[in-house]
Amino acid sequence: MSAAHTLGAIAERFGLRLVGGDPALRIDGVATLADANAAQIGFLANPRYRGQLATAGAAAIVVREADAEGNPRPSLIAPDPYVAFARIGALFEKQPAATPGVHPSAVVAPTAHIAAGASVGAFCVVEDGARIDDGAFVGPHCVIGRDCVVGAQSRLVARVTLVQDVRLGRRVLIHPGAVLGADGFGIAFERDHWIKVPQLGGVVVGDDCEIGANTTIDRGALGDTVLEDDVRLDNQIQVAHNVRIGAHSALAGCAAVAGSATIGRYCLIGGGAGIVGHISVADRVTVTAMSLVTHSIHEPGEYSSGTPIQPNRQWRRNAARFKHLDDIARRLGVAEKEKKP
Amino acid sequence: MSAAHTLGAIAERFGLRLVGGDPALRIDGVATLADANAAQIGFLANPRYRGQLATAGAAAIVVREADAEGNPRPSLIAPDPYVAFARIGALFEKQPAATPGVHPSAVVAPTAHIAAGASVGAFCVVEDGARIDDGAFVGPHCVIGRDCVVGAQSRLVARVTLVQDVRLGRRVLIHPGAVLGADGFGIAFERDHWIKVPQLGGVVVGDDCEIGANTTIDRGALGDTVLEDDVRLDNQIQVAHNVRIGAHSALAGCAAVAGSATIGRYCLIGGGAGIVGHISVADRVTVTAMSLVTHSIHEPGEYSSGTPIQPNRQWRRNAARFKHLDDIARRLGVAEKEKKP
Amino acid sequence: MSAAHTLGAIAERFGLRLVGGDPALRIDGVATLADANAAQIGFLANPRYRGQLATAGAAAIVVREADAEGNPRPSLIAPDPYVAFARIGALFEKQPAATPGVHPSAVVAPTAHIAAGASVGAFCVVEDGARIDDGAFVGPHCVIGRDCVVGAQSRLVARVTLVQDVRLGRRVLIHPGAVLGADGFGIAFERDHWIKVPQLGGVVVGDDCEIGANTTIDRGALGDTVLEDDVRLDNQIQVAHNVRIGAHSALAGCAAVAGSATIGRYCLIGGGAGIVGHISVADRVTVTAMSLVTHSIHEPGEYSSGTPIQPNRQWRRNAARFKHLDDIARRLGVAEKEKKP
Repeated sequence: MSAAHTLGAIAERFGLRLVGGDPALRIDGVATLADANAAQIGFLANPRYRGQLATAGAAAIVVREADAEGNPRPSLIAPDPYVAFARIGALFEKQPAATPGVHPSAVVAPTAHIAAGASVGAFCVVEDGARIDDGAFVGPHCVIGRDCVVGAQSRLVARVTLVQDVRLGRRVLIHPGAVLGADGFGIAFERDHWIKVPQLGGVVVGDDCEIGANTTIDRGALGDTVLEDDVRLDNQIQVAHNVRIGAHSALAGCAAVAGSATIGRYCLIGGGAGIVGHISVADRVTVTAMSLVTHSIHEPGEYSSGTPIQPNRQWRRNAARFKHLDDIARRLGVAEKEKKP
Repeated sequence: MSAAHTLGAIAERFGLRLVGGDPALRIDGVATLADANAAQIGFLANPRYRGQLATAGAAAIVVREADAEGNPRPSLIAPDPYVAFARIGALFEKQPAATPGVHPSAVVAPTAHIAAGASVGAFCVVEDGARIDDGAFVGPHCVIGRDCVVGAQSRLVARVTLVQDVRLGRRVLIHPGAVLGADGFGIAFERDHWIKVPQLGGVVVGDDCEIGANTTIDRGALGDTVLEDDVRLDNQIQVAHNVRIGAHSALAGCAAVAGSATIGRYCLIGGGAGIVGHISVADRVTVTAMSLVTHSIHEPGEYSSGTPIQPNRQWRRNAARFKHLDDIARRLGVAEKEKKP
Repeated sequence: MSAAHTLGAIAERFGLRLVGGDPALRIDGVATLADANAAQIGFLANPRYRGQLATAGAAAIVVREADAEGNPRPSLIAPDPYVAFARIGALFEKQPAATPGVHPSAVVAPTAHIAAGASVGAFCVVEDGARIDDGAFVGPHCVIGRDCVVGAQSRLVARVTLVQDVRLGRRVLIHPGAVLGADGFGIAFERDHWIKVPQLGGVVVGDDCEIGANTTIDRGALGDTVLEDDVRLDNQIQVAHNVRIGAHSALAGCAAVAGSATIGRYCLIGGGAGIVGHISVADRVTVTAMSLVTHSIHEPGEYSSGTPIQPNRQWRRNAARFKHLDDIARRLGVAEKEKKP
């Protein structure tokens, strides 16, 4: 917990208008609208929680202009309360102590370079030719493989594996269990068995990216797998070799992108969605949860596949009929204009 | 392998009726119906394997009353043979040696508290304010982050990461690669880029929960992500921030639950199924494999989405027609009573 | 980078016919058709890149006989350019130094056996009764649990966990974060709560298998989970207890196979596809991405489920109609011959 903040100082710092509260009031945290007490700031970002205003006990509530009137507590008026919450909440994050230096248990190769201001935790392994830049934090149990780069101010929370030839930009945040730079899945079939296709490329991650727990990003076969700046990946995502993800795109948990697919900028890929290999997705495309993108998408917009959830008995009847759908369409004489799914 | 057990002692211990065998016979293990030898106990839990009774060679077979007559071998009669198998099989588990104490290679912060009867393995890192209670087993390569609690008799097999503010109940079992307490996926869009929304909550796991290999459970944004007692999670599951899963619910491999969703008690979520964010699922709901739940479910029962597996040529024809389904329905004059999926 | 290779030596070594180049030319690497420079070999394996031949700058290009005429650069003619690429590329892999011996930081149980020619990396834990055979490479942070076997020439890149009773064949390659031999998901419902079903079996992995990053393969409940020879698993795959996968089958990222399912030989399972438990899939079956196999497949061929991706507005209309599909079929008098999905 950092030093004390007053309501007035918070309003001033983030350019919010304070309506009806005591600027000198000491604030010691943030909380949900339902839970915030008289020393905490609450938030109304999602209109579905508007009903909770009446019983709220917060020191003040961050609201849009339009919601200030319905707020019986003091208001901090923000154009986007969710963004304001992000800013205010950051004041109350417990900052882990990141003492610069290398933990005595770490194993560091002689040809690795660790900046004086970087922090390398217990049981880390830093291999030949790796470089860890100033202000970077490498938590316990990380493996920084050969010729990898951890850019300045980047933070590997714990147990992150950079296998080989992975270059992280600045301020990259990676959560535990993530594996970057493992071999892509390249196999060639020769007569009656598989042979491995060497994976010789690397992974390049731009500035300000975030990579979730247990997410995997494979190295390229030839050339690199690339995340441009400000790409945000949730947990358990799979990014295959030679994928390129454009700046400011965000992928929700368990999404998967197959080899050599290209995703544009400002895309939103829903949880569990799949993108097949060797296709491209335009900028500003949204794919809803668990949809499968099987061909290139050239226009911005929202895309979906799948069928609605139903009680199983009804679903079974309908699903069985799916097998007759072409037959049904033929009986009705529906044209086959677009037969290829 | 623990001390010897006789057929009679096993019958008595678990309240099973022995029909036709020698109570003094030494039993040295359990096996499948097909594989069990004359010193092992076999089981008939799933009726589809009834045909294997004729050739079985087991010392005795655990069966329902109704199957005893068709069993040419001695019977151990149980109301639920699968439950009886669980109990008898546990006698023959190889118990790993869990010597109390801290492995000399572990790195333990001065403010951490490890009970005298707890076991902490090689290369563990235990951070400030963490607490490991009596009888807990923390296997090699675990990270127990700041202010985490490992409850009494809990067992972290190996390489489990508790990032921060994770509180485990008693007798919790966690398999390797699981990550609890990583930041939830909170990002707010500001003009032309993302800013991170601080994740300030924790994870609370009730008594008797089991969490599979490489499963991830994120900490809450504000408030906690909660698993009530006796929740059972398979491998590679993703539980997002502020999810709540009710007591005695079980989720199969690769299921995913998005932020702030609430799942009731005694639910069964199939493999690869998805639950979108901010919805609630009632008690005693079953969701079949790879279904996507896109809205709240208020009634117990079984729910599904998806289409049946078919040979690709037939599937392609039907899938192409899915795009004309609204057109087909209109031609037939089907009412649009329920248009929103 | 290994010693220098000439164009002529490469042609001879892999039985390729060189047309139009200088056999004495020194080659220092491989690259994509677009990127290869005058000292690198390029490839044309996928016809969609044929247009790049005109501007290619490679020392030589590996092509099929039929593409040699359209190649303005020297040709290396191969029956299967992708296989030839795999072979040639392997010459230019950076070979990590695998010095035999055990890193001084590793913790090795007295009853473990490590061959003199094996390499065990920093912070590895090798438990009682484990065996690591000659020429095996066990990278940093691996846990080789009780009674596990790492076969000769196998390579565990880093941070691989073999929990217990896992036996790897020869030349098995496993990427970071993979967990083999964790307990299968066995729970039995007793009155009002779950009890754990002991998992007593192991995992057997044949020769020449590859297992991707963060993939999980559970030990059998009774008997073993088995991968036959030359099985290839991508990242983030879940293989449940007692599954058997036939030789030469390949599974793409995020696929999942539920308990006791059997997959034949030479199968191809697409990314994110699911196979439910207790069914069998014949040899030479292909399942397309994100399809769910809910019943046994007895014939070779390609199988699919799901619906096509569409713009969300159109998809919503069609998806809503899916709920009326049985009604639609009835109105048309379509027979219900095959009602069970």
